[in-house]
Amino acid sequence: MDRPDIKRMPKRTNPLDAQKQLLDAVHQNVMPAETVALQYALGRVLAKDAFSTVNIPDYDKTFIDGYAVNTAETKDASTSKPAAFKITGKLFPADYPTAIQVEKGEAVYVACGAPIPRGATATVKVEETRLNNDKIEVIREISSGEGIIPLGDDMRKGDLILGKEQVLRPQDVGVLASLGLSAVEVVRKPRIAILSGGDELIKQSSKNPTRIANNYALVVAGLASELGADAEMAGIMPDALEKVTAKIAKALTDSDIVVTIGGTSMGVKDFVPDAVNALGKPGVAVQGVSLRPGAVSGFGIVNGKPVVMLPGHIGSCIAGFYLFAAPLISQYLGIDGDGMLPKLSAELAEDLETGPQFRFQLVHVRRLVGKFLAKQVEGGSSALTTIVKSNGYIIVPPHTTLAKGSRVEVYLFGKLELSQIV
Amino acid sequence: MDRPDIKRMPKRTNPLDAQKQLLDAVHQNVMPAETVALQYALGRVLAKDAFSTVNIPDYDKTFIDGYAVNTAETKDASTSKPAAFKITGKLFPADYPTAIQVEKGEAVYVACGAPIPRGATATVKVEETRLNNDKIEVIREISSGEGIIPLGDDMRKGDLILGKEQVLRPQDVGVLASLGLSAVEVVRKPRIAILSGGDELIKQSSKNPTRIANNYALVVAGLASELGADAEMAGIMPDALEKVTAKIAKALTDSDIVVTIGGTSMGVKDFVPDAVNALGKPGVAVQGVSLRPGAVSGFGIVNGKPVVMLPGHIGSCIAGFYLFAAPLISQYLGIDGDGMLPKLSAELAEDLETGPQFRFQLVHVRRLVGKFLAKQVEGGSSALTTIVKSNGYIIVPPHTTLAKGSRVEVYLFGKLELSQIV
Repeated sequence: MDRPDIKRMPKRTNPLDAQKQLLDAVHQNVMPAETVALQYALGRVLAKDAFSTVNIPDYDKTFIDGYAVNTAETKDASTSKPAAFKITGKLFPADYPTAIQVEKGEAVYVACGAPIPRGATATVKVEETRLNNDKIEVIREISSGEGIIPLGDDMRKGDLILGKEQVLRPQDVGVLASLGLSAVEVVRKPRIAILSGGDELIKQSSKNPTRIANNYALVVAGLASELGADAEMAGIMPDALEKVTAKIAKALTDSDIVVTIGGTSMGVKDFVPDAVNALGKPGVAVQGVSLRPGAVSGFGIVNGKPVVMLPGHIGSCIAGFYLFAAPLISQYLGIDGDGMLPKLSAELAEDLETGPQFRFQLVHVRRLVGKFLAKQVEGGSSALTTIVKSNGYIIVPPHTTLAKGSRVEVYLFGKLELSQIV
Repeated sequence: MDRPDIKRMPKRTNPLDAQKQLLDAVHQNVMPAETVALQYALGRVLAKDAFSTVNIPDYDKTFIDGYAVNTAETKDASTSKPAAFKITGKLFPADYPTAIQVEKGEAVYVACGAPIPRGATATVKVEETRLNNDKIEVIREISSGEGIIPLGDDMRKGDLILGKEQVLRPQDVGVLASLGLSAVEVVRKPRIAILSGGDELIKQSSKNPTRIANNYALVVAGLASELGADAEMAGIMPDALEKVTAKIAKALTDSDIVVTIGGTSMGVKDFVPDAVNALGKPGVAVQGVSLRPGAVSGFGIVNGKPVVMLPGHIGSCIAGFYLFAAPLISQYLGIDGDGMLPKLSAELAEDLETGPQFRFQLVHVRRLVGKFLAKQVEGGSSALTTIVKSNGYIIVPPHTTLAKGSRVEVYLFGKLELSQIV
């Protein structure tokens, strides 16, 4: 029977199938590369393999403050029979390359990082020498190469230094600088527009314009940013089909991925699916997944761009975000697998049993001696404080019983979580 | 004997004692609070405990799309003997607060998030009702409170929502927004100025001005930023005492913490300790620690501000950074313990034996089934590629033998590392 108070009752899709369907539908949408200055490259994804174009160091240099000598002349040297060298010069790190030659019976002072003069085969630490007027005395046999960093010790021309997909860390940025680069090609961040529904948010905002009414959008924007997206809070969708449609149309034009929060369920003012269908083909692909919470999550595709439809309850919204939006961001960044989502293995603190649906279980992970313990966090799926008490989640298949102590794979919400696990 | 080619040979301090000495010397230097808009609060450290000033929700609301009814009227309801209700109104989330009253025999349509009308004690899912002309039929007994999120379910006035020292995550920012805040008091980031020595960097820069010559400073700046500091690359110190002194003096004026790279050893152009001593009391406090690599690390205090003196070899520099600069940043942010440094427990992949000094051992951690494995990364302490191959480190006391499989505490370099552990 057709009822005006029920919009539809879609079949709930297996969430993992739905996720695969989404990723497959937009698998060609990897972001292009863009060039950024090294100072701004931290956390960005390298677009191409980086090979060394230089030798580092590009000459033999001293590792220590000392004297460069020819080791042949230290043969059989001892405290009672030292090898003596006349000091004929000084070299500093800025003196590269050098034409100075060490002749028989001569030594050159070399400050740490200085080039090795011609004719020298090792450097001897200052503290290991005796000073005798203008000569130094070496009191043991020195092996060839002692105290020297040979040409190419750090890297050689043609070495693969960093592979594409590398999320650039401080040391990676440093190594690119040492190749002589001042900029690097990284994957452009996918622009993700976040739209919130509906009229109650507008009412809140008009009551106090300084207040951030759509706080769930702020949470989603923060999570998306941490995963490498360029997240934009694109405003509030009023409770009217044509206005929702216009907002989504604008967001599709301005960005690579659209995420809506709320308005996806079966209420009479849940206009998002209709709007997505109105905007282009194929429209809504999945509406409703067999996941608890998060069941009314879904997605559509409009002219090749994805619209992720998240539920309005924050717990459900987060579940839908990690099911659809997080892997989408990784795929757009060209990163395989779970992308930038930190994960770890933990022991479950309490028994857990699922019903006919997949479970998105919030957990709070802490460290015990030699292991992580994941405690289930319970609370209404509309309570933001429940998310605040959590630092990650696990996904448990339907009809599964996990005993306390079972090993589970925990996905941490973001980069900021691990540093606070105590 | 006084030798012109040896500046001094300081006694090496136990690194943990040296670290404590530094932290104690500047324990009063916690940064003041500053107010930032919520949009910019991600990753910042909360300056004060945050208490709720509101009830969320501040009225009973429906969790589902359905009908609000008085449950007393559903007593003994069944498919054969349904309880019938006349639909007298509709409520949506924006309709708060409501004066609508449900009288006997009446039901009100409530969209998910709408307020509960007076007289109703539960909501029934649309799908669980039958529509019969202008009436709905309820076919089972409904319990009081079903489908309702009661006032204060998420949080109540006066609840502690977030404690100070919390590094704000997306969900924390969201919960602050739901308190009606648009800004929050966070701990100001300590400004950390990074100075590099010496002339060879100036020579490199003048050869190619677009090149970033002082790449180690870039690494240190990135690591410091990840730990919550406001890091500035403050330039290159030429190889002359008065110029080094002037650079450090300027950096001390402009920032909260000064970090120098290079020029701390016993070479004839190692001017940093002399400069620090020249600038104010007490000057150099520790020069040289019993740590390998990193032995020539040290610090001074000038008029209450710390100058961390890092070695010029990158491996030693990183060791000194984590020994002195990282805990300093945490202390300035008012965070106890290891601060923002992510850590985990891992099994050592190979035997490890230390000599008379503490060992700063670079490791590469990866995940095996149910555990992390930490493999030692070897390589010259002057090779940046060694750091690139690593994602963390362990500290091993002197004269210690750790068998393969021993459990070790790994400090990851930064927030970006865990997401890349595979």
